[in-house]
Amino acid sequence: MNSPKRFPTVGDDSGLAQTDWLYKEELQLALRNKGMPLEALRYTITPTGLHYLLVHYDIPDIKPEEWRLKIDGLVSKPLTLSLEEIKKRPSQTIAVTMECAGNGRALFTPRRISQPWLVEAIGNSEWTGTPLSGILKEADVQRDASEIIFTGLDRGVEGDQVQSYQRSLSVREAIAGDVLLAYEMNGEPLQPQHGYPLRLLVPGWYGMTSVKWLDKIEAVAEPFEGYQMARAYRYAQSSDDPGEPVNLIRVRALMIPPGIPDFMTRTRLLQAGPTTLTGKAWAGRRSVSRVEVSVDSGSTWSEAQLGEPISSHDWRTWTFLWNARPGTTILCVRATDSEGNVQPFHQQWNFGGYGNNAIQCVTVVVE
Amino acid sequence: MNSPKRFPTVGDDSGLAQTDWLYKEELQLALRNKGMPLEALRYTITPTGLHYLLVHYDIPDIKPEEWRLKIDGLVSKPLTLSLEEIKKRPSQTIAVTMECAGNGRALFTPRRISQPWLVEAIGNSEWTGTPLSGILKEADVQRDASEIIFTGLDRGVEGDQVQSYQRSLSVREAIAGDVLLAYEMNGEPLQPQHGYPLRLLVPGWYGMTSVKWLDKIEAVAEPFEGYQMARAYRYAQSSDDPGEPVNLIRVRALMIPPGIPDFMTRTRLLQAGPTTLTGKAWAGRRSVSRVEVSVDSGSTWSEAQLGEPISSHDWRTWTFLWNARPGTTILCVRATDSEGNVQPFHQQWNFGGYGNNAIQCVTVVVE
Repeated sequence: MNSPKRFPTVGDDSGLAQTDWLYKEELQLALRNKGMPLEALRYTITPTGLHYLLVHYDIPDIKPEEWRLKIDGLVSKPLTLSLEEIKKRPSQTIAVTMECAGNGRALFTPRRISQPWLVEAIGNSEWTGTPLSGILKEADVQRDASEIIFTGLDRGVEGDQVQSYQRSLSVREAIAGDVLLAYEMNGEPLQPQHGYPLRLLVPGWYGMTSVKWLDKIEAVAEPFEGYQMARAYRYAQSSDDPGEPVNLIRVRALMIPPGIPDFMTRTRLLQAGPTTLTGKAWAGRRSVSRVEVSVDSGSTWSEAQLGEPISSHDWRTWTFLWNARPGTTILCVRATDSEGNVQPFHQQWNFGGYGNNAIQCVTVVVE
Repeated sequence: MNSPKRFPTVGDDSGLAQTDWLYKEELQLALRNKGMPLEALRYTITPTGLHYLLVHYDIPDIKPEEWRLKIDGLVSKPLTLSLEEIKKRPSQTIAVTMECAGNGRALFTPRRISQPWLVEAIGNSEWTGTPLSGILKEADVQRDASEIIFTGLDRGVEGDQVQSYQRSLSVREAIAGDVLLAYEMNGEPLQPQHGYPLRLLVPGWYGMTSVKWLDKIEAVAEPFEGYQMARAYRYAQSSDDPGEPVNLIRVRALMIPPGIPDFMTRTRLLQAGPTTLTGKAWAGRRSVSRVEVSVDSGSTWSEAQLGEPISSHDWRTWTFLWNARPGTTILCVRATDSEGNVQPFHQQWNFGGYGNNAIQCVTVVVE
């Protein structure tokens, strides 16, 4: 019988894995959640079905005709809006590079038992919605409000707490002009898994902030201490350490693995000769100032060509001409942001496995 | 450095894993390929981005204006067709339940090191295309042809062979009226990962037959002995055993896990009281004659209600009313097909990990 009893108790007492291999609980998550295959870095706008996806609980079953967005708490004018009413508000379309805060988690040692991303939890789609600032202005957020709490319709158990998925933003962050209540992705209504009928979209922040399947927006006086704020999504050294909040996306470059893959190991096979290496780079709210490539396992670095930025929220193309010679080569790429932060070989470890923007390296067998 | 050297050599000498845990090579595959989260069984037509996806090599980069389908070999009239020309042929739209032949692979012990599916490699979308029979008639397949070979534009290394993905069908199977050259999925042009611009679609067969990114269709006299026919996709007992070909989808029922999930273990939490269990059942080219549910770990079984079949190629809804009482319960569901085949608790082991339609069981904690 394929009963879950086959799956072992997971990790050590603190929920960490000291192993190189994966637990079946991690596999269950990896098969539900979806990475972007790296060859899809060739698309400036990620097709909807290739965008990374992380669903904490289940995709909720929402009847659009019954669904309403509630805006309440410390507001002078509480609102209850249907999707049609929201669509009548001013709309904006922006391309946004989104990345999961846990991207790179499975490359930490030890690693937190959770969704075991390597480097593929990324995507860059076009989102259409109405600016959150307009809705908050309509509701007239009161002066004593310090934060806005966003509640999704997805429910589950995490850290032994039954909960709806909830995250907050400071009022100042929430009224920034680029924060959207999004109802379209790549020109189509949101797919169920991406938050239909309405999701928050906060450019520059890791994806956990862009709450899907929005149910309620509430203005509150005190900082919100919900599970996803106070316990998950912290740069912490242990389960007891309060740590620091995870927020903005860190600088990263990724390359399209050149040549063709071995099915099982994904090691690349390439013909010798001139090869254009290419990929994308992004830096959250900062800009990318530099991308460098190494063709000798990271010993020496050369400047890549950076394409023009398209908008302030999405990734830039980079290219590098490499004369591939026979033998096995480890190619690496790293980016530097406008504040001088450069991707490290090893990112500083943290308990939750967040923000691991360590340099990507790709092994290529050249014939 | 996150170099692939961190990943161990995989499995034992034969490429089998004797372990309960997963190798990182399996994780790499699980993060590229995509399962359907089981709550999506609620959609009769699977939204495009939720359909399972298995890409052997890389998603190829195809310029539609340069792309042409070649039909040649033992035909009187070789053809070279653009997408526009193919779309001018008669079109047909059918809903088809597709399943990966490797679905259930990770539940075999030992298991083949490959894409480690549990039960989620499924989907049921609407496909639009032109019947293959019409195109083969136009090309006038000669009498001495016994098989039709389908070649995709995806290339990679498998079993140490550099290859394009290729599968064949007997001429008789290929001219069956329900085999399509499909260019739309759910009313939209194929997404890149689902075979854009054109794929084969063979209802009732496991997904490996529905070759994506079609490049060439060739009529040949002798049975095709390519890697994906003669070495992969065989019900075999070892790597040396020729075994039998994997072909039609076996009967299976799956249930939407009731209640809400624990994030990490995916164990379900449910309130006591009447609960409608529901899901889908399918049987390849056969029909589903019966679905049964067990609420006691498979000791006793009760008949579920079967919904009406919608078409001959897609899944049927089943429902079962359960009075959930407090405690931990293991729910199981099994289907029987029109030839009397019933899902087993343990499917007979095979080397490649194919056709594992063992009964699904779901652990539920009722409060």
